[in-house]
Amino acid sequence: MADGQSKERLPEEKVFKDPVHKYIYVQDQLIWDLINTREFQRLRRIRQLGTSYLTFHGAEHSRFSHSLGVYEITRKIISQFERSGYAGWPKEEKLVALCASLLHDIGHGPFSHSIEDVFDAHHESWTCRILLEDTEINQVLRQFDPSYPERVAAVICKTYHEPIVVSLVSSQMDADRMDYLLRDAYFTGVNYGTFDLERILRVLRPHQGRIVVKESGMHAVEDYLMSRYQMYWQVYFHPVTRSSEIILRQIFRRAKELHGGGYTFKWMMSPLEKLISGTIDIRDYLALDEALVQTAFSAWANEADAVLSDLCHRFLDRRLYKYITMDQPDEKLWQEIRNQFSAIGLHPEYHLEIDFPYDMPYHVYRPGSTKRADKEEKPPILLLSGEDHLSEISRRSDIVRSITGIHQGKYHLYYPEEPLLESAHRLPANIRELFALM
Amino acid sequence: MADGQSKERLPEEKVFKDPVHKYIYVQDQLIWDLINTREFQRLRRIRQLGTSYLTFHGAEHSRFSHSLGVYEITRKIISQFERSGYAGWPKEEKLVALCASLLHDIGHGPFSHSIEDVFDAHHESWTCRILLEDTEINQVLRQFDPSYPERVAAVICKTYHEPIVVSLVSSQMDADRMDYLLRDAYFTGVNYGTFDLERILRVLRPHQGRIVVKESGMHAVEDYLMSRYQMYWQVYFHPVTRSSEIILRQIFRRAKELHGGGYTFKWMMSPLEKLISGTIDIRDYLALDEALVQTAFSAWANEADAVLSDLCHRFLDRRLYKYITMDQPDEKLWQEIRNQFSAIGLHPEYHLEIDFPYDMPYHVYRPGSTKRADKEEKPPILLLSGEDHLSEISRRSDIVRSITGIHQGKYHLYYPEEPLLESAHRLPANIRELFALM
Amino acid sequence: MADGQSKERLPEEKVFKDPVHKYIYVQDQLIWDLINTREFQRLRRIRQLGTSYLTFHGAEHSRFSHSLGVYEITRKIISQFERSGYAGWPKEEKLVALCASLLHDIGHGPFSHSIEDVFDAHHESWTCRILLEDTEINQVLRQFDPSYPERVAAVICKTYHEPIVVSLVSSQMDADRMDYLLRDAYFTGVNYGTFDLERILRVLRPHQGRIVVKESGMHAVEDYLMSRYQMYWQVYFHPVTRSSEIILRQIFRRAKELHGGGYTFKWMMSPLEKLISGTIDIRDYLALDEALVQTAFSAWANEADAVLSDLCHRFLDRRLYKYITMDQPDEKLWQEIRNQFSAIGLHPEYHLEIDFPYDMPYHVYRPGSTKRADKEEKPPILLLSGEDHLSEISRRSDIVRSITGIHQGKYHLYYPEEPLLESAHRLPANIRELFALM
Amino acid sequence: MADGQSKERLPEEKVFKDPVHKYIYVQDQLIWDLINTREFQRLRRIRQLGTSYLTFHGAEHSRFSHSLGVYEITRKIISQFERSGYAGWPKEEKLVALCASLLHDIGHGPFSHSIEDVFDAHHESWTCRILLEDTEINQVLRQFDPSYPERVAAVICKTYHEPIVVSLVSSQMDADRMDYLLRDAYFTGVNYGTFDLERILRVLRPHQGRIVVKESGMHAVEDYLMSRYQMYWQVYFHPVTRSSEIILRQIFRRAKELHGGGYTFKWMMSPLEKLISGTIDIRDYLALDEALVQTAFSAWANEADAVLSDLCHRFLDRRLYKYITMDQPDEKLWQEIRNQFSAIGLHPEYHLEIDFPYDMPYHVYRPGSTKRADKEEKPPILLLSGEDHLSEISRRSDIVRSITGIHQGKYHLYYPEEPLLESAHRLPANIRELFALM
Repeated sequence: MADGQSKERLPEEKVFKDPVHKYIYVQDQLIWDLINTREFQRLRRIRQLGTSYLTFHGAEHSRFSHSLGVYEITRKIISQFERSGYAGWPKEEKLVALCASLLHDIGHGPFSHSIEDVFDAHHESWTCRILLEDTEINQVLRQFDPSYPERVAAVICKTYHEPIVVSLVSSQMDADRMDYLLRDAYFTGVNYGTFDLERILRVLRPHQGRIVVKESGMHAVEDYLMSRYQMYWQVYFHPVTRSSEIILRQIFRRAKELHGGGYTFKWMMSPLEKLISGTIDIRDYLALDEALVQTAFSAWANEADAVLSDLCHRFLDRRLYKYITMDQPDEKLWQEIRNQFSAIGLHPEYHLEIDFPYDMPYHVYRPGSTKRADKEEKPPILLLSGEDHLSEISRRSDIVRSITGIHQGKYHLYYPEEPLLESAHRLPANIRELFALM
Repeated sequence: MADGQSKERLPEEKVFKDPVHKYIYVQDQLIWDLINTREFQRLRRIRQLGTSYLTFHGAEHSRFSHSLGVYEITRKIISQFERSGYAGWPKEEKLVALCASLLHDIGHGPFSHSIEDVFDAHHESWTCRILLEDTEINQVLRQFDPSYPERVAAVICKTYHEPIVVSLVSSQMDADRMDYLLRDAYFTGVNYGTFDLERILRVLRPHQGRIVVKESGMHAVEDYLMSRYQMYWQVYFHPVTRSSEIILRQIFRRAKELHGGGYTFKWMMSPLEKLISGTIDIRDYLALDEALVQTAFSAWANEADAVLSDLCHRFLDRRLYKYITMDQPDEKLWQEIRNQFSAIGLHPEYHLEIDFPYDMPYHVYRPGSTKRADKEEKPPILLLSGEDHLSEISRRSDIVRSITGIHQGKYHLYYPEEPLLESAHRLPANIRELFALM
Repeated sequence: MADGQSKERLPEEKVFKDPVHKYIYVQDQLIWDLINTREFQRLRRIRQLGTSYLTFHGAEHSRFSHSLGVYEITRKIISQFERSGYAGWPKEEKLVALCASLLHDIGHGPFSHSIEDVFDAHHESWTCRILLEDTEINQVLRQFDPSYPERVAAVICKTYHEPIVVSLVSSQMDADRMDYLLRDAYFTGVNYGTFDLERILRVLRPHQGRIVVKESGMHAVEDYLMSRYQMYWQVYFHPVTRSSEIILRQIFRRAKELHGGGYTFKWMMSPLEKLISGTIDIRDYLALDEALVQTAFSAWANEADAVLSDLCHRFLDRRLYKYITMDQPDEKLWQEIRNQFSAIGLHPEYHLEIDFPYDMPYHVYRPGSTKRADKEEKPPILLLSGEDHLSEISRRSDIVRSITGIHQGKYHLYYPEEPLLESAHRLPANIRELFALM
Repeated sequence: MADGQSKERLPEEKVFKDPVHKYIYVQDQLIWDLINTREFQRLRRIRQLGTSYLTFHGAEHSRFSHSLGVYEITRKIISQFERSGYAGWPKEEKLVALCASLLHDIGHGPFSHSIEDVFDAHHESWTCRILLEDTEINQVLRQFDPSYPERVAAVICKTYHEPIVVSLVSSQMDADRMDYLLRDAYFTGVNYGTFDLERILRVLRPHQGRIVVKESGMHAVEDYLMSRYQMYWQVYFHPVTRSSEIILRQIFRRAKELHGGGYTFKWMMSPLEKLISGTIDIRDYLALDEALVQTAFSAWANEADAVLSDLCHRFLDRRLYKYITMDQPDEKLWQEIRNQFSAIGLHPEYHLEIDFPYDMPYHVYRPGSTKRADKEEKPPILLLSGEDHLSEISRRSDIVRSITGIHQGKYHLYYPEEPLLESAHRLPANIRELFALM
């Protein structure tokens, strides 16, 4: 049985050199063994930021390095709790928490958000299956303690009996977010994502099943939330990145459509075919990585289907869709554009995409309810004054209130530039003007 | 005709956010067009440091970002020369120099060093072919000025009539090395590769067809060379990286051997088959990228050939060879090991590799001759005192002399651990001791 | 006559190593000569952040280094304007602008804010006098161009005929503020003050006599203003710094009071005596520096007057006043405290100070009027969309609006702890409770 | 009795924000009380790098911040030893070691090296007196444990019975040096002094009464020693800094000479007079700080003695001596220069100083003897291979050997430029040529 002290502590601490945290320290045999499983190593072949490297060329870092980073921050938080002897932290949960933080992204596939959209997969459910089914990770966890696969899965699925462990891995200011802000800022090279991690770690307190923030740390949290705000608008919602995600999604949609229509691909590989046909199992899922997806695109660039071939070329050679911006929705205009696009031989379903960042799976900060009715709702950030007075941060901070639920989003209409330029003379004047075609 | 001033200057300067140089500035339409060719975009799919990401997980950056970095440093050097009005710099060569710095690595394929070793390809000759044959890059250069493809190729091949342009792109302290030291240090996270780039740029002087260093910059150059020394020993020659390169090379060797012997691969793709069979042309070469190689390894992990399958699994799951270290060569002992390995059923040609860093295509610093008899020989670093007294730096600096031609290298014997452990009882005592098997 | 091109350009560019900007570049003989005047060198003996080093021990940097930094940012902005060939920038004003940026703080004395409060001096008027009266600076400027002393003074006093030059040196996002945020963040070690200077420089545009910001730079400006907000609350308004400033001011007040009452100081120096008696001239003003003030405090710690001696000991040995915090003003309570303090032998006028940060000479951001009725009012930050649509930033940005005119300030009551502890038993219960005395 | 666990641990950890170590953590009441003594606070008024701020304007940091930094590194080393449970570290010595590291520089006065040269004071002996005589520090230590003043003094004087504690505070790679290299690099802004502190802390091992380095850390130590080498030549031995130190020393020499000759100073303060007359006691010594010295110089700039007045003006206004460089000593020539200087009315004893960096109290690295015959000799750096094989690093590392005992030093002749220029026509041709006077 595991009691928070590893049954086997490594004879000598291992370290990974990490650009964000300087070093990542591994002290437990269990953690070391998990890192060395094939499922965890596979994360090296999946980029943390999907297609963002097409906008920020430095953003080539993998989910492998992010997962180690989340683990390291969790380790530091717990170590701070233990050193300070805080009553609210259940010491025996340490290893479960470390495993959950290390493995919380294990279910991610290549370009997850796009694939999930098109094929209705969910990385969260794959995470649970990888923990619970026949994998090296499951084997390592089970050999350590038969209850570990379920316990770790419960933490990640937010059903664990100790809510504070869940809170560590999943809340508005969890180890996941703290690592990705710092890491994405480092690799993109923007300097918006930097906040004072060391100070934040010092003001966290375990309190009645939650991680809360000592009142004196309010400004540090404001700074963290502002970093998040800036990263969302400068990096995550960048319109060029959105354009590349749209291309990607359309490649998958087209492949699915063709496959459904009985099209014979000149090139195909089994895991991909199963993904497309909706029959993928865990073994094939684990064989999916970005290398396979990019190889498919290289091959499909030579397919007979013109739409698929064009989209694949666009992705590989970074000939992305251009965009125009609109402040307000205008369904009638949009329908007219679709009609005109059809009239000049374009496929509106592939050649026009209307995008609104607000629909994306991010929100800068929502105070949320503390009841977590919505499974997507992350618990809010609470400030602790005195012994036990809690207040939600947006009630205390003007800054936080100002970014809470902010929508600065505009509508972007994405489209391929060249065919429009070629057929500009056949379009009515209002459409030409909108797309700045003379 | 191009005269150093771009025929077309971009109406507004473009920038790339870059973690190493903060921003990369593009002012010329020609440079912008080159970056947007498919051959240049392909560099996004080739890692700068090959397999080093298996040792330093941050080292996932691509040759695309390095190429931009080399361009940016070259741009800064030239801009400093122009601002200071130095007589020795031929202003009309600016654009040729910028093109050469941007494109100097365009011929690299995936995991170049290993592939070059096994298939006797050379990225330098591919670079020339990409510049001179039917590619988008050739087209962009030719449209700018019909002489540009040849001129840029001549700079990269070191046959250009203005030696100072060659010196900028290829010397002991060229833009290439300055960028990769800084960049590799940034992405691995080690802090050895940092030197004062801004100061070095300020002490460079064009002088009689060479770039030399003002005497007062000697300590800055020492610091640069020490960074190089540290990076070589800490990063580039890291034994774990060497182990992964060995696995990679053996995969290619095995595939070539199998192919030569008429083996039918369950999975193959055309560019790879042509590489293996020695019939690759430029179109297929440009289709080779790391995605394709990794996809091949994933597929070959399921091949019938046990050696190939094992090697591919090892690479993908990072189950690398272990190593032992020896100070001196000992051919007799090595032969005995090979014999014993055979005796227990291993394939010495795949299961034992003896490695000596000195053989690798790097050297920390060699004063070299100034005559460049050897095409690999890079011109040495010269200090300029007064108006025109030049001296080679290792004659002036004790530090540089101490690292010149240094060999600290040891012999490493790489081998798979598990089969040895299993058959340990069948090995003689001296071999068991050597490999620390009980 | 000066025409923006220095009459004398330095034969070789000079540099200062600077931790914030890496290097500070001096290209003009005039700038070099100004830096070497005794009045400018004197800024080395005046700390940029006054007493903040008692809170943040790294904050020991001088106004000398800040002044060089303001010069360097101004130089970079102008150089960007010139390189881009923007129409709105009057090239012939370059040197005047550089002089004004270098010299804008030349009138500061030691611990300016406190001394200005007590002695009704103003560093701005001293700046003008140093430029216009008999000083080395005046001589250097006059020799360069007889009109320069007046022109430079006019820029600093905001009466110059070219408003854009004024705007560069004094606005809501001027070179002064940009340097001090970065510099103060660097030396204190907090990482709140860092924003992307290089990006901000790229989005500035001269436009109709003002420096405005290209619309696409809005997020960068938000980040800059958030840095300012954080620096104000974390550093500039830090209650411990306020406490040390209060002590300092009280020392001066006490010395003035004693002097006015005919007290004979055991130790006095002429420039200080003239300051206290209100008869200081420029020669004595320039002899005032922090060394002299601290030496005075060391000497006065041995004066017979108990109040003065105690205050000086407190300052030197960092035995600062404690404070309690109140959300709302309460004049009646405060009066009661004063009475009770008197009753136990304290001097309320020295032993109690009620402080409210809002009164301080800072405000995070005020949109201001564009008419500059109020001389203290700094012109607001304007965003430029398209060719000439301007909008004040707080109308466009929710973030900026949320920090505009924010008062989070609380009232702090500062007092010496020890005498209160000693006499706690003689105080009524409500006062004891307020000061947490049992 | 103290047992390594503080009798009083602070109820809540205190932190100082520090630019170099991010935060400095104080956990013991004793350390907190020592920091708050007036003798320790006095270190805020003494610059760490003396006159270097006249060369590197950022170098304005105090011995206060350095002392906290040495404490913090020591705390981290011990904490690493304790966490790893190394046998060789005597746990009960923790607090003594922390006190010694915090207080090792407590005896420094203003511009120590110059004052020590002229007045034959030694900061080491003042350190002992401050620990052992009637001071607040002595009182705090004694109240904690009556043996502490002597124990802490013994560590600093290297006579302590546990040599490993001495080794922590004073060796070739002690906490003192590690902090000052990082700190001086940070504040000057040069990037030579940065090495991987975290890695070095991880490879230190207590071993038979010494701190040694695990063999695998050799490259990290090389990097540390190279930083030291670069800092010495780029910062500590900078000829402009030397020039300012020479002026400073000559001011003191002149004042001493005048005082000895019965000269009546218009301005004098008691601690300074006692210093000059050799009768200074501890109370006056503690009243000496840089403020007082600079105030004296300001006052003495108006003294009747022309030599003293000129030197003081030079120091305050940074009108330093120029220098010429010679590779070899040449006593005969130097004597001729002195004669010629006299002939044109200069005072060779004040107007010519021949300086050789090798004489300065630094050496990059000397392997030293392990016997420490010479009290100044610092124990060398030893590498630990296996369980207990030790080797001195310069025997293993070519790099270290190359910088061991290196002298690149040249002779510098410092002199005031103006009087030489004025009388150039009266000097013989060889002297004119030497000083480049046409």
